[in-house]
Amino acid sequence: MSIGLLDKILFPKDLKKLDLNQLPQLSEELRQFIIDVVSSNPGHFGASLGVVELTVALHYIFDTPKDKIIWDVGHQAYGHKILTGRKNEFHTNRKYKGLSGFPNPSESEYDSFGVGHSSTSISAALGMARAAKFKNEEDKQVVAVIGDGSMTGGLAFEGLNNAGIENTNLLVILNDNNMAIDPNVGALKEYLLDITTSKTYNKFKTDVWNMLGYLNKLGRNYQKLAQQIENAIKSFLLKQSNLFESLNFRYFGPIDGHDVVYLAKILKDLKDIKGPKLLHVITQKGKGFKQAEINQTTWHAPGKFDKHTGEILKIKSDKLIPPKYQDVFGHTIVELAKQNNKVVGITPAMPTGCSLNIMMKEMPERTFDVGIAEQHAVTFSAGLAIEGMLPFCNIYSSFMQRAYDQVIHDVALQNLNVVFCLDRGGLVGEDGATHHGVYDLAYFRSIPNIIVSAPINEEELRNLMYTAQLPNKGVFSIRYPRGRGVMPQWETPFKEIEIGKGEKIREGKDIAVLSIGHIGNFVIEATKELAKKRIDVAHYNMRFVKPIDENILHEVGKNFKTIVTIEDGTIVGGLGSAVLEFMNDHGYMVKVKRLGVPDKFIEHGTPQELYKECGFDTNGIIECIKNLVKPNLLSNVG
Amino acid sequence: MSIGLLDKILFPKDLKKLDLNQLPQLSEELRQFIIDVVSSNPGHFGASLGVVELTVALHYIFDTPKDKIIWDVGHQAYGHKILTGRKNEFHTNRKYKGLSGFPNPSESEYDSFGVGHSSTSISAALGMARAAKFKNEEDKQVVAVIGDGSMTGGLAFEGLNNAGIENTNLLVILNDNNMAIDPNVGALKEYLLDITTSKTYNKFKTDVWNMLGYLNKLGRNYQKLAQQIENAIKSFLLKQSNLFESLNFRYFGPIDGHDVVYLAKILKDLKDIKGPKLLHVITQKGKGFKQAEINQTTWHAPGKFDKHTGEILKIKSDKLIPPKYQDVFGHTIVELAKQNNKVVGITPAMPTGCSLNIMMKEMPERTFDVGIAEQHAVTFSAGLAIEGMLPFCNIYSSFMQRAYDQVIHDVALQNLNVVFCLDRGGLVGEDGATHHGVYDLAYFRSIPNIIVSAPINEEELRNLMYTAQLPNKGVFSIRYPRGRGVMPQWETPFKEIEIGKGEKIREGKDIAVLSIGHIGNFVIEATKELAKKRIDVAHYNMRFVKPIDENILHEVGKNFKTIVTIEDGTIVGGLGSAVLEFMNDHGYMVKVKRLGVPDKFIEHGTPQELYKECGFDTNGIIECIKNLVKPNLLSNVG
Repeated sequence: MSIGLLDKILFPKDLKKLDLNQLPQLSEELRQFIIDVVSSNPGHFGASLGVVELTVALHYIFDTPKDKIIWDVGHQAYGHKILTGRKNEFHTNRKYKGLSGFPNPSESEYDSFGVGHSSTSISAALGMARAAKFKNEEDKQVVAVIGDGSMTGGLAFEGLNNAGIENTNLLVILNDNNMAIDPNVGALKEYLLDITTSKTYNKFKTDVWNMLGYLNKLGRNYQKLAQQIENAIKSFLLKQSNLFESLNFRYFGPIDGHDVVYLAKILKDLKDIKGPKLLHVITQKGKGFKQAEINQTTWHAPGKFDKHTGEILKIKSDKLIPPKYQDVFGHTIVELAKQNNKVVGITPAMPTGCSLNIMMKEMPERTFDVGIAEQHAVTFSAGLAIEGMLPFCNIYSSFMQRAYDQVIHDVALQNLNVVFCLDRGGLVGEDGATHHGVYDLAYFRSIPNIIVSAPINEEELRNLMYTAQLPNKGVFSIRYPRGRGVMPQWETPFKEIEIGKGEKIREGKDIAVLSIGHIGNFVIEATKELAKKRIDVAHYNMRFVKPIDENILHEVGKNFKTIVTIEDGTIVGGLGSAVLEFMNDHGYMVKVKRLGVPDKFIEHGTPQELYKECGFDTNGIIECIKNLVKPNLLSNVG
Repeated sequence: MSIGLLDKILFPKDLKKLDLNQLPQLSEELRQFIIDVVSSNPGHFGASLGVVELTVALHYIFDTPKDKIIWDVGHQAYGHKILTGRKNEFHTNRKYKGLSGFPNPSESEYDSFGVGHSSTSISAALGMARAAKFKNEEDKQVVAVIGDGSMTGGLAFEGLNNAGIENTNLLVILNDNNMAIDPNVGALKEYLLDITTSKTYNKFKTDVWNMLGYLNKLGRNYQKLAQQIENAIKSFLLKQSNLFESLNFRYFGPIDGHDVVYLAKILKDLKDIKGPKLLHVITQKGKGFKQAEINQTTWHAPGKFDKHTGEILKIKSDKLIPPKYQDVFGHTIVELAKQNNKVVGITPAMPTGCSLNIMMKEMPERTFDVGIAEQHAVTFSAGLAIEGMLPFCNIYSSFMQRAYDQVIHDVALQNLNVVFCLDRGGLVGEDGATHHGVYDLAYFRSIPNIIVSAPINEEELRNLMYTAQLPNKGVFSIRYPRGRGVMPQWETPFKEIEIGKGEKIREGKDIAVLSIGHIGNFVIEATKELAKKRIDVAHYNMRFVKPIDENILHEVGKNFKTIVTIEDGTIVGGLGSAVLEFMNDHGYMVKVKRLGVPDKFIEHGTPQELYKECGFDTNGIIECIKNLVKPNLLSNVG
């Protein structure tokens, strides 16, 4: 391969200088560039490799940033970033103060819409296409690129349903790789597979028309008959034969998404076709990197790897390291399900991410991956629960925002026995602002009937899960962060936890700290350090934000003038606000310092960097308490 | 008509004693019963009339309550309530402590799932059908009855997509009346219309098969050819020809939903067909009451009417009465749109309910009814806004729960200029627990970047709307209640309101009251009464929960020992909590009494009854303040 096409390309205008027949080489170079960078600077991998050719073809044909490309979810947009002015900064991808792992309009004018969560692209693109009409920008093209996984989200369907009647030139590109992060599921997936296999639309069209052609060669009567049949079939096929055409989209495809030259030609043709249209493109996730093609789930976001051998580099340690909370959840639900035949597991397309795949393997009949469909996951759980099952519905905190109404309307209002396990609670790190799970404590706390809990460690997660499946506990939410806990020996026996009961972790007299969840461990470290400086901190692990432990709060209200609350979540309406409400309602005149995520969107970085930014890493806690206690000590002295 | 079939029916077991040929008479009696009661005790009307025959047939064929019927939305379930033990209480429908206007499992074992919001039935039914399999209740039937309007909600699609691969005997009945509350919109609607008109699936099937039959009569070769064509068409049609069959549902219909005998026969047959299936039933909303058939939107929930003449009875008044907030919104957006060509209006299927129909009539090209699709409404608005338009997206407060993620992820995170008008904010009255808009102030307050406001009256609504469309205001939410304001002369000139600035309505020295929104008017009345008793109350209309008016809060924090906050919303995380957070953060040691909706679900009744129950009607406010002030006055004296 001659080298250096990519070297000359900083922006799409440079790309447009290439000949069509140079695009395959450029695609290979772009692919290799992504492999090079992501192998040493971890990020999403398979998705971007799968759309290399599509990315090149789109920027070759369309006139970005005037034309708009909206990448659904956006973890497949690395090639797009590299071709749109960010090649030289791409090594900062997902790093603190570096490039975002997702398209972000504040980063580049080529990122036409901020993304991160799935299934938004059609609706956003339709809005942009309609705006273009209002502004008489008749030649502006708007393209939504959406995966078959994202297409299962209800929002995507709502967008299609509306776009089908709005007369815009919207182009939807269905990037069909048969995968979400895990293999895609659902009837739509089977339908798409069916289209692309031999028993299909296209084959049908060809077959029948061939047969009719044969008929045509006979006499007049048969010709007329053949024509009648053909017309009936044609008009029917055009209107109704295809799911997308049912919704008024013109359907094109399926075509090979790795043939960049053909892709470019087709895209050029589609520019001139009016009205809403859908191009069905078949791609392979991980294309061009053997291991990633074979094991697509592992290579969705593999971490650091050796780009030559394909070995994923794990951090090695001599000592036992604590497990991921995810795996504690995954193993624990299997244990519980073996004891309690009502227990079932539900995930909206995250079996590997949340480790429900452990149960899926052991008890496939009691585990449901419902596709990217958080709303359905919750209402489906409600249906199971009202008939006596005990669903554990595991949804990432930031995705649970999408099922907020279903939690209120279908579960809490009927006070059903559904257990919500909110994975990725708190700041998630490198995925950044779209994925931080920082609102759940606040938005759940406002809902009647719901138990809002968060464990401080692995044992407590197990015990909360155990408690939640005991009879008649009602709506029970358990949130925990991404990543590892603190207990290498985590397989503790189950113990029931009294609902609404926290625990005192440390006696103290200078100040009281109330923490919720895993970051209580930061407090444990901080109090040890502070003890060395003779600052004597009482520490309570609240376990529950709702119902909150009133005994602890009375004790604290009576004995302390200053309280610090700490939560890995927004300070607007969360644990700190709950404590304030209680203290006020019960006439305690105490000062409450609320530590947590401030009232702004936090970008990406390592969790440690973000905790520090928000002021609740261990050092932040130490400084905060020192500042609060010193004047008190002085005034005590005074 | 001989009379008295319905008289003998209290429960479905009584219905089952009838002969099939008596069902038409029973249907007519049931229809008349509904007309009789609803004409004098207002409620939803057209929807229940449209499913009278379907209701009778379902309870005739299925074995409820063992078999499960889930009524999507549920405002069409009056017939169901009457046939399942509640005929004699039906006159208490929607009254305080009376029957709920929606199915509610705590009211009857025949109400198998609580409903109110749209598009939940398929997901819930699938959960129930799966639970039946776990419990080896092989003969249990689960039926979801869903309208074509509800079918546009993304949740319904998510449910279909999942149900298509779960091997249950779920029956979905698509009640196709071509209406939501307003006429249904979107590509799906056109598709359904297409199925049911002459250029259709069925006609196609018939036509082609007839033609092929003719071919068949010829010699052997042609027979073979005909067979090949037929097989190809058949397998294709079965798998792919129909949107629902694309999703693995067996499709039946369309059939006449007012032929109760035929309905019963079909339902009986469908009981024996395994796997997920959809029966497409064509009905007419308002069937059997002429005016309701003609003007379906008006007669969705007409209020009291004369059942003989069909005249809707309006409350007559000699004096000018204040307008509905809805109409103030509707006229004001038209005024603004005439001044500002960026302004567009968006509603998810509520043009009449929120009065966007006024703009739709005057400026159809700038008004979008996107169907029952709250998520899409918000993300579509985001797309319009990012390209420079200024969308006013009007969504009922309780339905906005369904677009919570889109508000956070697509609008607030990008800080786009979208104006959310939250209609039905606060307790809505007779629609009850599912429809009260009592969480919005709390759940919006936790989101960064968003302006959270609520006007005290019509003028302020107009001025907030005016302010929101001035340049670069960012994310702007305005919430107001269902019903009438206080200003008969409401067409005031526009004035900009400073963001985050409230107003002092009344000076006072004994206590300060901070109110948000329309219920500030209750406070105005209360303070007048209290003044007569020499209790001198300062009253501040906050206008904004976020950003909150810090000048007012400093003033109040410095000058008062006791503050009352009043909001028509949950006291967990709302205005009261915001005030507490401020007072605490700024070191004011004040007692804050939070009046609002307590932390439980509130049932139905008149708004006045519910305000009273929650303690913030005018009398409740008076009593609350008296109790707070008396000890203070005493202690002042002491």
